[in-house]
Amino acid sequence: MNYRSIANILGWIVGFEGVIMVFPLLCALIYREGWSGLGFVVSIALCAALWFVLTRVKKKNDRFYAREGYVTVALAWLLVSLIGALPFVICREIPSYLDAVFEVVSGFTTTGASILPEVESMSHCMLFWRSFTHWFGGMGVLVFVLAILPLAGGGSSFALMQAESPGPSVSKLVPHLKATARHLYGIYAGLTLTEFILLCLGRMPVFHALCLAFGTAGTGGFGVLNDSCGSYNTYLQVVITIFMVLFGVNFEFFFLCVVRRFKEAVRMEEVRWYLMLFGGASVFIAVELTLRQGWNFFHGLQQSAFQVASVMTTTGFSTCDFDLWPQFSKTILLVWMFIGACAGSTGGGMKVSRILIYCKAGIREARTLIRPRKISAVRLDGVSLDAGVLRGAMMFLGCYVGIFAVSLLLVSLDCQDFETCFTAVAATFNNIGPGFRGVGPMCNYGFLSPLSKIVLTFDMLAGRLEIFPMLLLFFPSTWKR
Amino acid sequence: MNYRSIANILGWIVGFEGVIMVFPLLCALIYREGWSGLGFVVSIALCAALWFVLTRVKKKNDRFYAREGYVTVALAWLLVSLIGALPFVICREIPSYLDAVFEVVSGFTTTGASILPEVESMSHCMLFWRSFTHWFGGMGVLVFVLAILPLAGGGSSFALMQAESPGPSVSKLVPHLKATARHLYGIYAGLTLTEFILLCLGRMPVFHALCLAFGTAGTGGFGVLNDSCGSYNTYLQVVITIFMVLFGVNFEFFFLCVVRRFKEAVRMEEVRWYLMLFGGASVFIAVELTLRQGWNFFHGLQQSAFQVASVMTTTGFSTCDFDLWPQFSKTILLVWMFIGACAGSTGGGMKVSRILIYCKAGIREARTLIRPRKISAVRLDGVSLDAGVLRGAMMFLGCYVGIFAVSLLLVSLDCQDFETCFTAVAATFNNIGPGFRGVGPMCNYGFLSPLSKIVLTFDMLAGRLEIFPMLLLFFPSTWKR
Repeated sequence: MNYRSIANILGWIVGFEGVIMVFPLLCALIYREGWSGLGFVVSIALCAALWFVLTRVKKKNDRFYAREGYVTVALAWLLVSLIGALPFVICREIPSYLDAVFEVVSGFTTTGASILPEVESMSHCMLFWRSFTHWFGGMGVLVFVLAILPLAGGGSSFALMQAESPGPSVSKLVPHLKATARHLYGIYAGLTLTEFILLCLGRMPVFHALCLAFGTAGTGGFGVLNDSCGSYNTYLQVVITIFMVLFGVNFEFFFLCVVRRFKEAVRMEEVRWYLMLFGGASVFIAVELTLRQGWNFFHGLQQSAFQVASVMTTTGFSTCDFDLWPQFSKTILLVWMFIGACAGSTGGGMKVSRILIYCKAGIREARTLIRPRKISAVRLDGVSLDAGVLRGAMMFLGCYVGIFAVSLLLVSLDCQDFETCFTAVAATFNNIGPGFRGVGPMCNYGFLSPLSKIVLTFDMLAGRLEIFPMLLLFFPSTWKR
Repeated sequence: MNYRSIANILGWIVGFEGVIMVFPLLCALIYREGWSGLGFVVSIALCAALWFVLTRVKKKNDRFYAREGYVTVALAWLLVSLIGALPFVICREIPSYLDAVFEVVSGFTTTGASILPEVESMSHCMLFWRSFTHWFGGMGVLVFVLAILPLAGGGSSFALMQAESPGPSVSKLVPHLKATARHLYGIYAGLTLTEFILLCLGRMPVFHALCLAFGTAGTGGFGVLNDSCGSYNTYLQVVITIFMVLFGVNFEFFFLCVVRRFKEAVRMEEVRWYLMLFGGASVFIAVELTLRQGWNFFHGLQQSAFQVASVMTTTGFSTCDFDLWPQFSKTILLVWMFIGACAGSTGGGMKVSRILIYCKAGIREARTLIRPRKISAVRLDGVSLDAGVLRGAMMFLGCYVGIFAVSLLLVSLDCQDFETCFTAVAATFNNIGPGFRGVGPMCNYGFLSPLSKIVLTFDMLAGRLEIFPMLLLFFPSTWKR
């Protein structure tokens, strides 16, 4: 294990966190929230000190393989969260450090699960910081650092990007990795800006528009009002719906559109299935709401589209208490929570492409049983999948189910309702935010015991980093030289 | 597809069902239940007629591959269930044919989920038939027929056994397959007889002892009293607990013991893990019951051991309403429902050996991430696993999760409580019987809509036959010549 290189990179990451903390500090100055601003000043000072020490560590060699990549990413996310929680504690807006860590991990992992019973009494700079963590966490903290910093050579960039990017395989948009990271962030910033402008045009207050644009872009879900998005007008809700769906699309699609390779873009199977799944679920739920609860169909469709987009892209905004919907609708939402958004997007969950791989591999397996001598490959977008990608996707499912079961057992130690336990784990592990019942859209995670909060914090990180980086931390052989 | 050979085998299976229906008919004569006996007379006549027609179909060739094996097994189980339901309908003890099919499928698949609100008013011959189906379904209807009949040649026996036997791979105990089937049934009958005698020694009425021995042996779960096993004394409950655990053990273990290869028997990893999982869960639950609900520890241990054995071996007996236990205990039971018993036993679920394979493959994957150049195999009992077995186990998990999600969606159309929906699917798909809440140990499945009953019937069959045989029925290419 190349500890020196890891320390060096961690130093840069922490330094970067210090820089982005300047924005909430500015916010505190604008809104004259001096006391809250103090928290950021202290945290920035700590970041600067850590940056100074860690980046002085001299590298002995450039050896940096997949193992180092996974460990660096896992440690970076942990460190960034532990420091990012400090402002909340220092200014006493969230007195418990564990709660603050939960809240910030929820921010960076774009979960949006909150321990706060209500957010309207929070200071502006804290609300801004919560939403801002979504924005950086969505695309990846390290990917951003890769895009702007002259980091290590020797393969470290690819190892880091592989460990942080969601989805069964990493696709480089352009041959040069730094350029790929810049392209990604360019598209990302452009879309966020567009949403911000459209929200402002709908007469949303600028501060709200900024926070919500960050929250949508990162598919996070922290809002600035207690009822999330319930009190915004229909225009605003529709804009948010559309942008949630957009940010759940594989960014390769946008890249192909930008470089005018439209044919390839339209052929992307994952995006087509993603949109079909979104549309299908919205219509099914709207029909059930119309038939069983007497809603107007079009109002129902608008509401169900918002909620399905929110759950499927794992954002977690809500405009109504979908916990009160009939069971079939709730089960659709629950299953869609697990499916999640596209690979290479800012959304979480298992990712549509993995589901596609599972289905295709299952059909292939059945075909093999029927005609054992006929050999066929599993193809996605017309390309036959590498055996390693296939095995990785299968192992992901195995680890996913295993971690889910263990988390469920631990959380059920203090939570006495099955639906609450189950959806709390589902909503954090898939980086969504709200679940049903005790953790429904109108409730919060504050009532849980410290053990459950630690378990769910781990689940959020494991979900965002797609399990393996967090899991490797527990293998003794990871730490051998 | 070799339709003629399939028809021929189905003919023998139906004929065999006609023969075993003589036993409940005898039971009807003994207890002078003439009207109920009539149902069996009619059904036996139908079986005889079908046997006469189908076995007259001349085979054109001996081609009989895995595909034919899977389809034959799936169709055989469907046919046997459709006919086995007739006696209930003819004598009007279960007036609805769909309900009767649900009940008989629940019997043959050794699920033990019932649509009956109470069983004590049923006639003896019907109770006997319910339990008797457990006994034959447990070890496999086709395996039994293989053991006694001079069926087809040309590999059909192995294809059939592979399709019907539970577990990630089929192990032949002895080189000759017919001898393997006979050994299995010999051990099975011996254990059942032992339990029957021990139950009779505990002053259980002979009829009860017979039905319960059948229900335990097949890990089925149909009882003859309304409170399942709650009113039996502690001795009887302990005997049943021990035999439930025994019937969840891989029968290879018993075979090795019989032929005095004790060392190999003790080395079987699956059996050791199975016993550890059973012991661990029993103790954890006993501790929680002692601490949270003030039970006496030893009484709690006896009760929890019974319930854990019942759930883990997927039997489904109960001695108390475990739906009232605290959430952690309930979650343990729920997770153990999915783990299930050993491969090569009469129990259902995913099987301990599959879980072991997933864990070992996960650790191997992590090792590969840490040291990509070191190649290591997944080993079970010291033997490195074939890539095909590994891929099959992974595909099983994928299909399992997929079918579970679809079933959950369909059942939630008419069932308005999440815990009920979820555990109804879990308890039928894993062939257990009782779930929690609306389908808890003191409730039944009668209230569900016809659609849900059809879905759960499919799940029971898919669970018992380990998914692929049932799934292949839906592929058009299965039916091509």
